[in-house]
Amino acid sequence: MGGNTFGSMLRITTFGESHGKAVGVIIDGVPAGLPLGEDDIRFELQFRKPGGKFVSPRREPDEPEILSGVFSGRTTGSPVAILVRNMDVQSSPYEDYRYRPRPGHADLSYVLKYGLSNWDYRGGGRASARETVARVAAAAVAKKLMLLHSTMVAGYLASLGPIDAARPGWSEALCAKYSPLKAPDPTTEEKYVEVMRQALEAGDSWGGVAEVIVMDPPAGLGEPVFDKLKADLAKALMSIPATMGFEVGQGFAAARVRGSEHRDNIVMKGNKPGLETNRAGGMLGGVSIGEPIIIRVAFKPTSSIRRPAKSVDLRTGEPVEISVKGRHDPAVAIRGVTVAEAMVSLVVADHMFRAGLINPVRLSEEEAATIEDRWRQYRSACHG
Amino acid sequence: MGGNTFGSMLRITTFGESHGKAVGVIIDGVPAGLPLGEDDIRFELQFRKPGGKFVSPRREPDEPEILSGVFSGRTTGSPVAILVRNMDVQSSPYEDYRYRPRPGHADLSYVLKYGLSNWDYRGGGRASARETVARVAAAAVAKKLMLLHSTMVAGYLASLGPIDAARPGWSEALCAKYSPLKAPDPTTEEKYVEVMRQALEAGDSWGGVAEVIVMDPPAGLGEPVFDKLKADLAKALMSIPATMGFEVGQGFAAARVRGSEHRDNIVMKGNKPGLETNRAGGMLGGVSIGEPIIIRVAFKPTSSIRRPAKSVDLRTGEPVEISVKGRHDPAVAIRGVTVAEAMVSLVVADHMFRAGLINPVRLSEEEAATIEDRWRQYRSACHG
Amino acid sequence: MGGNTFGSMLRITTFGESHGKAVGVIIDGVPAGLPLGEDDIRFELQFRKPGGKFVSPRREPDEPEILSGVFSGRTTGSPVAILVRNMDVQSSPYEDYRYRPRPGHADLSYVLKYGLSNWDYRGGGRASARETVARVAAAAVAKKLMLLHSTMVAGYLASLGPIDAARPGWSEALCAKYSPLKAPDPTTEEKYVEVMRQALEAGDSWGGVAEVIVMDPPAGLGEPVFDKLKADLAKALMSIPATMGFEVGQGFAAARVRGSEHRDNIVMKGNKPGLETNRAGGMLGGVSIGEPIIIRVAFKPTSSIRRPAKSVDLRTGEPVEISVKGRHDPAVAIRGVTVAEAMVSLVVADHMFRAGLINPVRLSEEEAATIEDRWRQYRSACHG
Amino acid sequence: MGGNTFGSMLRITTFGESHGKAVGVIIDGVPAGLPLGEDDIRFELQFRKPGGKFVSPRREPDEPEILSGVFSGRTTGSPVAILVRNMDVQSSPYEDYRYRPRPGHADLSYVLKYGLSNWDYRGGGRASARETVARVAAAAVAKKLMLLHSTMVAGYLASLGPIDAARPGWSEALCAKYSPLKAPDPTTEEKYVEVMRQALEAGDSWGGVAEVIVMDPPAGLGEPVFDKLKADLAKALMSIPATMGFEVGQGFAAARVRGSEHRDNIVMKGNKPGLETNRAGGMLGGVSIGEPIIIRVAFKPTSSIRRPAKSVDLRTGEPVEISVKGRHDPAVAIRGVTVAEAMVSLVVADHMFRAGLINPVRLSEEEAATIEDRWRQYRSACHG
Repeated sequence: MGGNTFGSMLRITTFGESHGKAVGVIIDGVPAGLPLGEDDIRFELQFRKPGGKFVSPRREPDEPEILSGVFSGRTTGSPVAILVRNMDVQSSPYEDYRYRPRPGHADLSYVLKYGLSNWDYRGGGRASARETVARVAAAAVAKKLMLLHSTMVAGYLASLGPIDAARPGWSEALCAKYSPLKAPDPTTEEKYVEVMRQALEAGDSWGGVAEVIVMDPPAGLGEPVFDKLKADLAKALMSIPATMGFEVGQGFAAARVRGSEHRDNIVMKGNKPGLETNRAGGMLGGVSIGEPIIIRVAFKPTSSIRRPAKSVDLRTGEPVEISVKGRHDPAVAIRGVTVAEAMVSLVVADHMFRAGLINPVRLSEEEAATIEDRWRQYRSACHG
Repeated sequence: MGGNTFGSMLRITTFGESHGKAVGVIIDGVPAGLPLGEDDIRFELQFRKPGGKFVSPRREPDEPEILSGVFSGRTTGSPVAILVRNMDVQSSPYEDYRYRPRPGHADLSYVLKYGLSNWDYRGGGRASARETVARVAAAAVAKKLMLLHSTMVAGYLASLGPIDAARPGWSEALCAKYSPLKAPDPTTEEKYVEVMRQALEAGDSWGGVAEVIVMDPPAGLGEPVFDKLKADLAKALMSIPATMGFEVGQGFAAARVRGSEHRDNIVMKGNKPGLETNRAGGMLGGVSIGEPIIIRVAFKPTSSIRRPAKSVDLRTGEPVEISVKGRHDPAVAIRGVTVAEAMVSLVVADHMFRAGLINPVRLSEEEAATIEDRWRQYRSACHG
Repeated sequence: MGGNTFGSMLRITTFGESHGKAVGVIIDGVPAGLPLGEDDIRFELQFRKPGGKFVSPRREPDEPEILSGVFSGRTTGSPVAILVRNMDVQSSPYEDYRYRPRPGHADLSYVLKYGLSNWDYRGGGRASARETVARVAAAAVAKKLMLLHSTMVAGYLASLGPIDAARPGWSEALCAKYSPLKAPDPTTEEKYVEVMRQALEAGDSWGGVAEVIVMDPPAGLGEPVFDKLKADLAKALMSIPATMGFEVGQGFAAARVRGSEHRDNIVMKGNKPGLETNRAGGMLGGVSIGEPIIIRVAFKPTSSIRRPAKSVDLRTGEPVEISVKGRHDPAVAIRGVTVAEAMVSLVVADHMFRAGLINPVRLSEEEAATIEDRWRQYRSACHG
Repeated sequence: MGGNTFGSMLRITTFGESHGKAVGVIIDGVPAGLPLGEDDIRFELQFRKPGGKFVSPRREPDEPEILSGVFSGRTTGSPVAILVRNMDVQSSPYEDYRYRPRPGHADLSYVLKYGLSNWDYRGGGRASARETVARVAAAAVAKKLMLLHSTMVAGYLASLGPIDAARPGWSEALCAKYSPLKAPDPTTEEKYVEVMRQALEAGDSWGGVAEVIVMDPPAGLGEPVFDKLKADLAKALMSIPATMGFEVGQGFAAARVRGSEHRDNIVMKGNKPGLETNRAGGMLGGVSIGEPIIIRVAFKPTSSIRRPAKSVDLRTGEPVEISVKGRHDPAVAIRGVTVAEAMVSLVVADHMFRAGLINPVRLSEEEAATIEDRWRQYRSACHG
């Protein structure tokens, strides 16, 4: 029973494999009147694009084509389909793994689930991070819609292996996407570069933690009891390949402290009640309160490394040794930041609809103009 | 837009507030032929029952009434509705908080979302952990269904405040539910008791971490790409009140290690491929592989404590000081273990249906007999 | 895989069997602030109550108990659970049919689906029209919500066996519910009484057609392409027991005419475009346009009649003759009118949420007052 | 809130407009191991292709491209995306209707819903029957899956305007798709041709009724109480453009007869219980019983005809007269037959999954071979 749809009122359905013809997404629930063009999608896709030193060397232009749902530069209320053709596919190295599942990958589980003879073994097939292109493309729409409430989302790499980033201010977080390692500041970036350099040299990889911050969220997002905002965020983020953990606010550290040390005092902020501190991470009872929403997601280190590991030949049961060739990110957490940010955006925008904060049918001219104006600012930010 | 339904093929819809007339659940998708009685529900409810020294002193018999879906001791394929009346409701202490939201509670977010005049301020209303009675009741059905594949779920309190439990064996984990603090062994229990004693004395509370283990899960559970097993588990667990984080297998620690240190070697186990270690936590690519599934969930410390905190009067904006009376768990993580176990059971059983491993319409006589037999063993376990 | 939930944003989940302990419903997605009491539910339930001359003689008080979601007379945003206990259950006559399925009933299909040993053979079990109590109870909430837009729904029995009702005006349609045979005028009522009297005498029954009119619907209801308003209405109505057909506007007659005879001219009505005629039944492209929505649903004649029919003994395959005792409606279409009206209400209210026309989280004080005022008028209508 | 997804376990999401770049579909829930190629899709698409004398003269090759979910000629369990580019788009005639909605079309309702400035007025946009290409393409997968149980679906045009077809035998029904007017026999075809010829001459059109028969359905399809098979069929069929009514078995005629005249006797057929007659249309209580499922759907006459009708200019409110140019089907019911057949196939296959009759994860080699063999026979049928 297919699990390729995500969201409730703003709903995406994705398709595509690593070495298939294309990846893509249908976004359903976009109100009419939103200015949208391929350039908006392209803007977001640039931040997860492969082809650098610290990410997969696969050369993909990631050129999005909007197939439907947009007329004269505006959405029509019909589903928006976006197609991204796969251009740089090199499947031959994967023949080696057809019967020899790569440790740490979904190879084994897909074979067990779908059967050895049906398995698309080329580049991880559907389990590949290539699939996340569709998520990032769709997030461009979510990000634009959120701007109606001046809400913005920013992600950065909070730790890479043993290195922790200094906690950034909002504008540092917002601009981290331009850093090749999603570092929030130059000092951290340098440290990240050095630790990655060593790992690459050693034929190894590192895990990392992405932090995503939602700035100026409206209060009231999240539907008790199962569709709490934190619950939907957790699902969204744990659906990303290579994720191992999710936390909100003080997170796991909250489990080691006393009530008097964790709970946030309630104080007036201007004429609105808010939190003195924000250990809660912007939600109480799983519902947003207007404070920044802060979540973190842990990525495991890339499993595809030169250093050999043990596997078995599925035909014979014989042990084999595997040293993974092919083209891979040396730390999936880096591009994972962009995908995490995308998923958070999709969840927050979806919950804005659910909370009645965006009209599900159409935007007014004023709303469209407001969004377009803020989007322009958002795109030109970080270039001062 | 309501968020009170959970699950895909085995689907629960819950209702009820802390100080309302009742809490309850409709379980839809139960195949015909499952032996089911109120005693099965009662068995599971005992483990989250209030009324002890370390949990809320509220005295609730938690007597379940099956209203539908069962005929002559067997399910019929129709929805199973279970009702638990609230008996020991003392709402008067809550008048104090009607306009003064308790720090760390959902009071503020519910007021912001639903409006001050519509808010059910008695005992947390729908945000109360009382709601989880319905989840634990429903999980009795899930647990029985899972036994068709000999799959069992066990939870225990892995840490309480600063104290860590020793890692238990499977039977210790399975029997931890009988410990008043869900400790996996007597030594840990003693330490937990001591740390709780001190906290209670100080008018304070502790956070904690629940670990849940799924033993002997079938391979192939989890639907790429959004309904990965880890994603649905994350949502399920982060929908529990007071949760702050979720992790699977090596979890957040995986973000700090190298690829060569994290990924599990694939080796033959008998005539099946498996993992030499299980840092992955039983899933690859979000799909189960037959190894034990291991997840952890972090609970914040109880916010309702005697020690005072700051809040505001929502009518005037004036600062107030709050010292919470009423009846509360000194560490929500304790009963949280039972709820976490319930939610994991519901997810795993749901995914067994999705994977075609349980017939969604009816069980055969043999299947029913097998389940009943294993259920009897499960219930009598830990009493040797 | 359970099918006991209906609706998208206003969502009901029902439970209960004819001869079980109770029937009931959880309504999820009701915004906070709606005035609601058991008397509102009772008002609607009176119109489908058994106990008359032309409907089942079963004596059920149909006393609704609101279990959750309402506090101080207002909804809180939490799910509203409503329970109706079954009081007058006489199961013994049904022992006769345990192995001998009644022609025209769901007996045979339930046995084939769920298995002879799991089947609740008492009074049709879940397939009984008793289940529709839950739908009518839930519709009270839908009807109140619709009044925010002054939208009202009325149903009447458009034909009973060979007799056709004269087409009623709006107020006749609205008041038909007070007629024991849901006739829109006294002359029709007399004819209906006579035709039913003859049928009862002959130990027989009649089919009939219910017409439901939605007055003053907002334009824009219905979501292309699959969730067209007409499509969701069709599903809603064809989910009612004993239904054989559904049509909108000119319906099947439209299939026999020319384009020039069917399509409605577009003309200005006041300052809004509308239809000169309304053969379309209030929708174009499956989306409402502001004209009255008109649908009809065909009910088959009651299968449970004194006149004998052939069946088989499922244990032996031997032919048997069945003459149905028990207590039944001599024409299910009569109470079917009320259920059809309820289902239309649930669909229209759901689509108001989907179209952004009712806030999904909470009603303002003004909105609540407007609804309450209009509801009072609605309840006192027809008594001048 | 988007309504572009249909189905529960076999789930399609479609996109595309009449004059946009493409139409397409993502099919989620297809088990791994199903043989599938573009030629299978092409086979089904041929029956709704425009370009003849009695259907729209638009020249579309309707060339499907499978973008994902198939590897080495077999499905992989990943979503199957199918793309069909629009080739013959002539939008200029539609400038005339930009502010002047065509009577009988969705123009008016789309403008009211989405706003005049957001409306894609070219060729009906998303409301165009062009959208149904995606449904017919997806149905190829459904039809193949159903063959696992030897279940087949056939549609034919049961009436065209005033002409009724003689009731066909099964093989006539199955082969009607090859008739340009979907007539079940040559005599009926002649009459249909003649009546259409006259209508075209007069600048007019006719409505019609499609009948769809499901042969050899398994018993037990349909989920009480809302997802009854008849309810899901009703929704599926009433989601097709231009539909006005739906009925099952005896349909509306059942509302005019006595119980003793409608209900079907239950008799043994071989060693299984069945119905002596089949007025029920193959379902009891909304659940299939193994008898043929028979439904009918009424199509209104094409609204786009040469004969003028009244409309208004939406900018000024001035009355205008419209005589529709552009390229249209003179009777939408003709191609409607193919779409109705497609929708029935999707519903039946979906319910086979829901009833546990097809494994949702993967087909065995034997199952795949059985399907492929029967599919070959199905494709070559009618050519003897």
